[in-house]
This record gives sequence, C-alpha cells and structure tokens, in this order.
Amino acid sequence: MKSIMQSLSECAKERGALCVGLDTDVSYLPENIREQFSSSADAVLAYNREIIERLADEKIVACCKVQIAYYEAMGVDGMRAYAKTLSLLREKKIIAIADVKRGDIAATANAYARAHFSGDFEADIMTINPYMGFDTISPFENYFEKGKGIFVLLRTSNEGMRNIEGETLANGNLVYEKIGNEIVRLQKKMQTNEVPAIGAVVGCTNEQDAKAIREKYANTFFLIPGFGAQGGKAETAKILLQKAGGVVNSSRSILCAWKKDEDAQKNQNAFSLAQIAEFAIREAKRESKELEN
Amino acid sequence: MKSIMQSLSECAKERGALCVGLDTDVSYLPENIREQFSSSADAVLAYNREIIERLADEKIVACCKVQIAYYEAMGVDGMRAYAKTLSLLREKKIIAIADVKRGDIAATANAYARAHFSGDFEADIMTINPYMGFDTISPFENYFEKGKGIFVLLRTSNEGMRNIEGETLANGNLVYEKIGNEIVRLQKKMQTNEVPAIGAVVGCTNEQDAKAIREKYANTFFLIPGFGAQGGKAETAKILLQKAGGVVNSSRSILCAWKKDEDAQKNQNAFSLAQIAEFAIREAKRESKELEN
Repeated sequence: MKSIMQSLSECAKERGALCVGLDTDVSYLPENIREQFSSSADAVLAYNREIIERLADEKIVACCKVQIAYYEAMGVDGMRAYAKTLSLLREKKIIAIADVKRGDIAATANAYARAHFSGDFEADIMTINPYMGFDTISPFENYFEKGKGIFVLLRTSNEGMRNIEGETLANGNLVYEKIGNEIVRLQKKMQTNEVPAIGAVVGCTNEQDAKAIREKYANTFFLIPGFGAQGGKAETAKILLQKAGGVVNSSRSILCAWKKDEDAQKNQNAFSLAQIAEFAIREAKRESKELEN
Repeated sequence: MKSIMQSLSECAKERGALCVGLDTDVSYLPENIREQFSSSADAVLAYNREIIERLADEKIVACCKVQIAYYEAMGVDGMRAYAKTLSLLREKKIIAIADVKRGDIAATANAYARAHFSGDFEADIMTINPYMGFDTISPFENYFEKGKGIFVLLRTSNEGMRNIEGETLANGNLVYEKIGNEIVRLQKKMQTNEVPAIGAVVGCTNEQDAKAIREKYANTFFLIPGFGAQGGKAETAKILLQKAGGVVNSSRSILCAWKKDEDAQKNQNAFSLAQIAEFAIREAKRESKELEN
C-alpha cells in the first residue's frame, strides 16, 4: 500500500500545497445562519459540508485538517459533527488530518491510535505530541502499512516554542532537534523510497529556523502551521515546501473570509450559507496562488 | 471559592490518597457481562457506574481520574459514556480528573478549556501537556477562580521520560525543571494560602527523582501515576505524598482485580457485574491501605 504521505505529496504537487483547516467555531458564521440550525454542532457541520463539497469539485487544495478542540468544546453533539466531517472528507476522497496532538504511552497511546485511525473518528493522518518520550510514537507505527501516517510536533509556530522546543541542550542541540533525529531514525528504519509516513509539524513564523530545518530534514514531509492569521509569510512557507515538501495550513482566514468583505459584514443577515462558503473558497484560491512557486 | 486542589487535598487527608483511574476498556469485563449490553460503551458505563456508586458509599478514595483515550477509541458512543461517567461523578460529589493531556495554543487552548471545564465533558481538573510552551497553560488560569484546576505534566512515570523531560539543558537544569519553575511562578502569582489550583504530574517509578522533586516543589500538589501496574512502589509514592501532598492513581490493577482471583478467572461467566465490581472495590481498599502512613 502506498504511504499516505506519498499520496499527500502527490496531491500537493497536483492541487497546490494548501491545507484547509476546518477549525470551525460557530462564531465564524453570521447570526441568521446559526439560527437556522437546532444546535451549534449542526451549523458547524453544515458549513463544513458546503466547504468540503466545493473543495472536492474544484480540486484546489491538497487536504483538510480538522482541529478536534473546537468539536470537543461542543460536547457529544460536537463529536458527532466531528465524526461526520471526517466521513464527508472520506466520501469526497480528500485526505484528512486529525489535529489532535495526542501524546501518551503504552495502552493509552494504543487507544488513541485506535480512536483516530479507525471507527467514528477515522482520519488518514494525526498529529502527535512527543513530549513524554519516544514511546509516545511507537504505537502509531503499526498503522503506517495500513495507509495511515503521523505528523510529530517539531518546531511549532507560536512564540512560546522558545520555552521548551527551542531550548538548548547540554550537548548543544536544540530540544526539537532531538525529536527531529528520532523522526529521521524511524524513517530510515522503514527503508522506503516513498515519502515516509512519519512527517513533522514545522511552523512558518521564523525564516531562519525554516531554512535550517528544511536543510536538516530534507526527506521529511511537513505540516506547516502559522500561515496568515499567525503572521507566517508565504516566502517562509515556500522555503519549507522545498525538498520533500509539505502542506501549508490555513484555517481562520478562510473560514472567516466573509468578515473581510464590507458588504457581507454590513448585510450579513441577507447571506446564505452557500454565499458565506463562497467567500471561503475564493480566499482558499487566493492563498493557494500565494503559495505557488 | 475554595481552590479545587485545596478541596482535593482535604479529601485525600480524610479518605486516603488513592485516585481510582476509570481507564475502562471493555476487555476488562468478562465476556458474558459484555454480551448483556448492546455496545461496548454501554458495558463500560455500567461498570463505571457500579464502581462510582460503591466508592461514593464507602468514601475510600480521594477522587477518580478518567482517561479519555479509552472513550475516544469507542467513537461517539464512547464520548457519550465519557460524558455520563463525569456526570455520575458530579452527582456523587467525587472530584473528577479528566486525563486528557491536552496541549495547544491560543484559540485552540481556549476551546480545550471550554471542552473540559464546561458542558458535556465538564471535569474538575484536567491534565495539560506543556511541550509547545507556557502559552499552552495560560488559557486555563481563568478557570481557577471558578473552582477548576490543572495538573501539568512534569516528570511522567514512563521509561521514555528520559528522551525529553529528563534531558539536561545547557544551563544544567533538566527540561522538566524548567516547567517546574514556571509552575512555581504561576502559583506565586496567585498569592493564595490554599493549595494552588495548578499542580503537577509526577510518576512514582524513580525514588531518587521523587525525593528531589518533592523537596524542590514543596507547595505543589501532585497527581502520581505509575503505582502498581507500572512498577511504582508504595514507598516512592509516599515520598511524593509528603509536604503539599498528592493523589496516587491506580487504574488497571483495580479495574481488572477479578482477573487475579482464581475462582473468578475460571468461572467468570457465572459472575455478575456487581460481583466483578466488588473485586475492584476490595483491591482499591487494599491499595489505599498500602499508601497509608
């Protein structure tokens, strides 16, 4: 079976490197649209559905990333909307990244792998927080040959990354380089000519770090947050898209694109869900172009 | 409002320091009991209910910890069982720790706080993974005055903690000490005479580390994993229970206590759910005694 990162890499080459983040909060929708639904979760799901269907038709993005926190915040209904969003992505053959940042050990890590690689919450790729140790990664390796993959947090896009990730160890390495070395070790162990199913999360908010990281982990596929809303520039993202490549996530600037339109802002209660989604699609196209070489 | 850690500390003094981990996997139940329920989630919930009701009657433990991974692995039904388990704990006035180890930033961290401190998945305390930086902690601080609290991962109980947590920084500190210092800084900022609402996760699998950590973070309340199944000794746990104290988690050895009984093993299909739970309660009592000073 083809590695999921190989498929994602091919998809990014064909459709562009943009990853649409469905971090959908109900506040991202105009009041009158929210009121058409019996719950926040239903409104969010309907918006996701509009966007997913349009993305599937137009084939303008590499994949979607679903940030589970927004769905957890809506309780059981939210988790149902999360499951349904993933199943819509599967149905439309759009690669789904579950942004769950889970990190635990032994039987618990196994449970997380089952949770997000099978059943209601099945996604293609999930994000992993390796802080507790490399034993947080191993339970996921068994799923690589089943077409699943992981993005391990390497150098995130937030200022706070300096607190731990960016600290210098006694041997002169940065903390995140120790994780990078482990990722490379695991990739080599796989002995594959494809893009390895274990990738890394690398933010595009610092150009110097981006250059060093792209150079050092030439064979690693990146999930790249921080673009747009968080201040990351297209030029920095493009550095990270070199060599083995990657996908660049954008969430809020796409989901809330209608808010930047003066007419839509003023007359928001006259807009339909499809029209609101149209702003999102147009913004996705614009951002996708910005990332082109 | 009293700090939740103050309440938990008082509860631990009164009822003993044991925290029962409801990391309930359906495989922890005999086949014939599983078959009485239409889903794994219902079977798990029924077992949790038996245990929670008995714990509430007997008042032998400080609190319960619910490991969300096992519920996520059962999909939407599992999340419903998770919500119901938390609501049973609330109803029975047992302090509930959500072992979710979430760690994210900005709007996402806010969503996680909403998710686990309100609504369907409301718990009293949640566990936090601080790897991405100290900005992963701040969104939870607003909830402290509403009677909520967090346990930040400090020194976990697994062997792999050496990979990152236990690494030495250029300034000679360990990585986890940098997190410990931040916890202390946040506690001081609170200016409280109570046990501060921000505690730490410290495993009881290494005696030397336990001594050093208990000494260094004298005012910090600990959630202590690693006891029993993971090889942590009561003596080491007791070191961590000194000074500001803590609660010692035990999950599998309690939930699967019936498996250690020869008669129950052999004739498991003749046992009722209440009988299976009785083994769990007896084991909890035994472990609680082991932790007494």
